[in-house]
Amino acid sequence: MKHFSADYLRDYCKDVMVAKGIDEDCAAAVAEMLVDAELTGVATHGVTRLAIYMERVEKGLVAKGNECTIMRESPSALAIDAGNSLGAVGASFAMEQCIKKAKETGCCFATVKNSNHFGAAAFYTKKAAAAGMIGFCCTNLTAKIAPYGSSEPFMGTDPVCVAVPSEGYPVVLDMTPSVVALGKLILAQKLGKQIPLGWALDKTGKPTTDPAEGRKGSLLPIGGPKGSGIALIVELLSGVLSGAGTATHLHDLYAFDAPQGVGHFMGAIDVAAFMDVDEFRKAVSAVTAEAKSLQKAEGVNEILMPGERGCREAEARMAEGIDVPDEVCAELSAMGAPYGLRLA
Amino acid sequence: MKHFSADYLRDYCKDVMVAKGIDEDCAAAVAEMLVDAELTGVATHGVTRLAIYMERVEKGLVAKGNECTIMRESPSALAIDAGNSLGAVGASFAMEQCIKKAKETGCCFATVKNSNHFGAAAFYTKKAAAAGMIGFCCTNLTAKIAPYGSSEPFMGTDPVCVAVPSEGYPVVLDMTPSVVALGKLILAQKLGKQIPLGWALDKTGKPTTDPAEGRKGSLLPIGGPKGSGIALIVELLSGVLSGAGTATHLHDLYAFDAPQGVGHFMGAIDVAAFMDVDEFRKAVSAVTAEAKSLQKAEGVNEILMPGERGCREAEARMAEGIDVPDEVCAELSAMGAPYGLRLA
Repeated sequence: MKHFSADYLRDYCKDVMVAKGIDEDCAAAVAEMLVDAELTGVATHGVTRLAIYMERVEKGLVAKGNECTIMRESPSALAIDAGNSLGAVGASFAMEQCIKKAKETGCCFATVKNSNHFGAAAFYTKKAAAAGMIGFCCTNLTAKIAPYGSSEPFMGTDPVCVAVPSEGYPVVLDMTPSVVALGKLILAQKLGKQIPLGWALDKTGKPTTDPAEGRKGSLLPIGGPKGSGIALIVELLSGVLSGAGTATHLHDLYAFDAPQGVGHFMGAIDVAAFMDVDEFRKAVSAVTAEAKSLQKAEGVNEILMPGERGCREAEARMAEGIDVPDEVCAELSAMGAPYGLRLA
Repeated sequence: MKHFSADYLRDYCKDVMVAKGIDEDCAAAVAEMLVDAELTGVATHGVTRLAIYMERVEKGLVAKGNECTIMRESPSALAIDAGNSLGAVGASFAMEQCIKKAKETGCCFATVKNSNHFGAAAFYTKKAAAAGMIGFCCTNLTAKIAPYGSSEPFMGTDPVCVAVPSEGYPVVLDMTPSVVALGKLILAQKLGKQIPLGWALDKTGKPTTDPAEGRKGSLLPIGGPKGSGIALIVELLSGVLSGAGTATHLHDLYAFDAPQGVGHFMGAIDVAAFMDVDEFRKAVSAVTAEAKSLQKAEGVNEILMPGERGCREAEARMAEGIDVPDEVCAELSAMGAPYGLRLA
């Protein structure tokens, strides 16, 4: 385990990318996203992903620059072709445009096609919340969830994220429509453990406790037809409306057969178009304070708001630094070494 | 059981409302909403609700006219004060304005405060889908769901609805963030049956199989913190951003102490701002056809898309008519009789 400041880690990741020929602004966007994930405690989407992102760039599967073009534009809508830019590049560009336009018109939504894995969706919605807006973001991913009634994966574990500004931490709901993430099955399989019924179906559509069978089958959505419906709507917004195509047509981050072809759908809704922003922030804080002060269920120490833990951890890590496991440090060092970059 | 055509039932409900002094356009909006619920098989939100709506009007708890005023307006956003109009009046007005503005700018969202029970959310989102747009609608309701970690109800079983146009039936996801609707507990209690674990908690926050205890406690959200998070976001959008206030501050439809004070949040996103609408409709139909043709899970006869059953039933009932139970017919007859209106 090594310990770094957020700034150091961000600069190192950026320098590695720039050394590898990535455009400087693009490198900055990706580094910021990766370190934000580390700060909020979502290490699975943090600097450990830099290696696969760079491997894809080196194999010519992802562009080195900002290749985004606006295909259609109206006062409150944008259809963007990311031109196979790094995921954080297209998604950051889209959200920044949405915020700019929402400031003028009240709200703006954008589709992005020909994009790539963009990390944690909360990174983008928090940009809107920081600007006094409600941020919305979803993306499609390779197929893992079956439509309700089917046994074949068709929709991705597509994250849906909404961020709402308050006086303190924003309320950030960042959820997949599956009961658990695929990572939990991978981990159970590694540890030789069974999984509870209710997490996955085998490939014939039967409930399974075997993580290996679950990985061959599909992940169960929350609330049956409800979670399945959420995933389908995300596919229609980020996959169809963007022109990207739905989950079964996407390419996996860890397969090297083709560009991923991921689609995103995101937007910003300006609070100021509805009410005074300070008044809104105050009211949201009052609501979360009220919710946190309710009677706790048995065995619960604290009622947490969506995103609260992550924001609190980010504050602590901004002050105290970020721990990075040795294996990830080794990967980061190896990427920088050929260019004379040393992970201190 | 009596059998009516949709047109007849709509006209009768409208005539009753007009006879009771409701503004003609308002009566038409409510009648259309009630009969749409009947058509799609959501009889709980159908003509059986006319009696309570009218009782509230007669008690002076709901306005007879369209009292909507626009408090803030920008090219893509509207903050509406419904002035205690009937729920369908404010919500229909808001969605119609959103559709009009989205046609010009690409998208538009609206908040509504000082509103009332608006029926089924799908009625409003389908208006957007019919106009070639993606419709979004949510509303808050009296508190029934506890925040994750708490045992006290704080959020309503707030419906979230999205409608997406296709070549055939729109895809309409209309869901509450609770595992089941309160009605299932009421029914179980009436029948003297237990409820499965996982539906509700008693008022101390413990899982219960007793529907009476569940009604005193809270309804469980789908996916634990996920469903709880969805309900909280709906409270922040339809309750706080609108200025209506959150669930615990609302008044129940069946209590006669005060106007309900419900808030809505809704919007329309114009497909044409992103891609050719016909191409989009075709692509959505191709996706749903593909999903429906996947391998079926054991015991499943047909894979249904969100909203498919309702749209199909509506088509059948448009052709064949609507069955209304005798008790509901008696209520409708009693409401019309003082004005010489006869339910044929």
